Amino acid sequence: MPLFTPQDFTMMSRAIELAKGGIYTTAPNPNVGCVIVQGDEIVGEGFHYRAGEPHAEVHALRMAGDRAVGATAYVTLEPCSHYGRTPPCAEGLIKAKVAKVICAMEDPNPKVAGRGIQMLRDAGITVEVGLLEQQAESLNPAFIKQMKTGMPFVQLKMAASIDGQTALANGQSQWITSPQARQDVQKYRAKSGAILSTSKTVIEDNASLNVRWDDLPLSLQEAYSQQELRQPVRVILDRNHQLTSDLKLMSTEGERIIVAEGQDLEPILNDEQLIDLAATFSALAKQHHINHLWVEAGATLASSLIKANLVDELILYLAPKIMGSDGRGLLGALGLESMAETIDLNVKDVRQVGQDIRITATLKNKES
Amino acid sequence: MPLFTPQDFTMMSRAIELAKGGIYTTAPNPNVGCVIVQGDEIVGEGFHYRAGEPHAEVHALRMAGDRAVGATAYVTLEPCSHYGRTPPCAEGLIKAKVAKVICAMEDPNPKVAGRGIQMLRDAGITVEVGLLEQQAESLNPAFIKQMKTGMPFVQLKMAASIDGQTALANGQSQWITSPQARQDVQKYRAKSGAILSTSKTVIEDNASLNVRWDDLPLSLQEAYSQQELRQPVRVILDRNHQLTSDLKLMSTEGERIIVAEGQDLEPILNDEQLIDLAATFSALAKQHHINHLWVEAGATLASSLIKANLVDELILYLAPKIMGSDGRGLLGALGLESMAETIDLNVKDVRQVGQDIRITATLKNKES
Repeated sequence: MPLFTPQDFTMMSRAIELAKGGIYTTAPNPNVGCVIVQGDEIVGEGFHYRAGEPHAEVHALRMAGDRAVGATAYVTLEPCSHYGRTPPCAEGLIKAKVAKVICAMEDPNPKVAGRGIQMLRDAGITVEVGLLEQQAESLNPAFIKQMKTGMPFVQLKMAASIDGQTALANGQSQWITSPQARQDVQKYRAKSGAILSTSKTVIEDNASLNVRWDDLPLSLQEAYSQQELRQPVRVILDRNHQLTSDLKLMSTEGERIIVAEGQDLEPILNDEQLIDLAATFSALAKQHHINHLWVEAGATLASSLIKANLVDELILYLAPKIMGSDGRGLLGALGLESMAETIDLNVKDVRQVGQDIRITATLKNKES
Repeated sequence: MPLFTPQDFTMMSRAIELAKGGIYTTAPNPNVGCVIVQGDEIVGEGFHYRAGEPHAEVHALRMAGDRAVGATAYVTLEPCSHYGRTPPCAEGLIKAKVAKVICAMEDPNPKVAGRGIQMLRDAGITVEVGLLEQQAESLNPAFIKQMKTGMPFVQLKMAASIDGQTALANGQSQWITSPQARQDVQKYRAKSGAILSTSKTVIEDNASLNVRWDDLPLSLQEAYSQQELRQPVRVILDRNHQLTSDLKLMSTEGERIIVAEGQDLEPILNDEQLIDLAATFSALAKQHHINHLWVEAGATLASSLIKANLVDELILYLAPKIMGSDGRGLLGALGLESMAETIDLNVKDVRQVGQDIRITATLKNKES
């Protein structure tokens, strides 16, 4: 590990802050920030805003102009080495004649990791890697997971009363959670690459499952105009062809992937003739570039996802209400016969969102 | 409201801090602190440590000696005017010839409020009231409630999985919560005047329902020796005479009040021939000086207390586990037919205790 200077830390921190400017817009691309420094002066800055638009390095180099010559570039991710919709950033840095490039992390795709760095070194540029790596990784958990494993990062959202009920026995459930919690959900939707649900849930609530700009917090509305905001893809499991054209989902803006025979994605079945969720998620990642799935569904799908060990993060909103054990439980009946069989969580974060409590947790068996 | 000086605030804050020295020992007496100041120098300090022992003012006056003459005394509660196990503190302050007394609050008992103040004023002492009143009140929520209403302050403790189950269908429940949560419960028990439960719960767990010194946090063990620690009274509803002498409860140290015919407290029944919980609590306060009830019980008693609007604070520990809706629910079935009928809470505090989540809440209908 090279010795980084205090200025290095300051500049990479700045690059990481810049990268966050794209968290609602870059999917499926990663969030990347770049700072170009001449002596102790920042001469160029930029971040990747949207897939198909220039990468962070391009923005920063444009701003720096001639002052990039002999400068140090701080980039939160290894510069790309391939020709995509934009030319490779490593080439841009070489052409601009920077003297040194510091990357927070290598490209997470093991097949290309190191190629951008090599290209720079071959051109005589000093390259150092690993400054604030953990912070840089936390910018792109979904992109990194997909690159490394081919599977999307899955967040399962659930909402219940404080005694674990998602609805009364008669099905009534509106509104368990507060407007603040529903606004919080809009933020998660907006950050995700796709929202997954079932036709049953969509039909029950006549849910549009899109991001409603009007419901976003003011700070987000100020940062993104209604036109700019990216709509996540909506993926609906509809094996029995229950979706009808009169549903809100079918008329609201945004891409849809209907998983049904003869539709956008053919159902992949397991030995029990049920939808093979792992294979379906893999197909979503490979064929549709979906790195980040936000799941809003009922007890059945939630339970299947947990049992299949497909949940990276559970986001549970608990409303300060008691509904009684004769309602509908979070995951339905599990038939456990011993406390050793419980589904155990690691709580990562607990906070109040309005009057509700939001719990962020991972599943323990995932980590063992 | 008189104009208090910055020194007044400093000294009363100190008196409030001192008062906290008794929170595990004074019940059923209130926590009171006293500071005596000559010029800008503290010459005497004290707090009430245990019922039957000297009041805060006595300790502070003893320490001050002759230097109390012409001094200002800061007391967190109006000095008492009656002869109890100790002579009235108002008299002590008069004899010591203090020039001024500042009280944070009046005596909460409306029948005696103002008498101590009047006694001091009659003796020519300047008296001011209301400095940091809210902070002083929060030292003694249970004492104040009982003095004002004749009813004890009731905290209901419950523990469940994150999906609201207190046990599996087969009754298995050990240990839902973590050692840290159980230690936290020991602290609440130690602060309370009495622990209430039912013979059913006692028998199921063979619970001793006492404070186990060994299980207290180190900070508490350092502050109180095993001998000093007060054991709360254990109140057990045992209408069907199910308690047997072999139970741990019957052999462990500490006072017991068995609510059963021919026992320590006769059951008071309502029109439906069930135990009248409000009348029972009132009797506990009046006949047994219990201001502060900590309830550990099953779904039936919990549900009855909530329906009777007798719960001042719900302390709910949620363990990061999912047990499935076929377990035993927090309050059992409630038969609700509309979301308007849910039992609504005001969340006052949420925090992690070990891996568990502790929610402190009041019941909404109490406040309407």
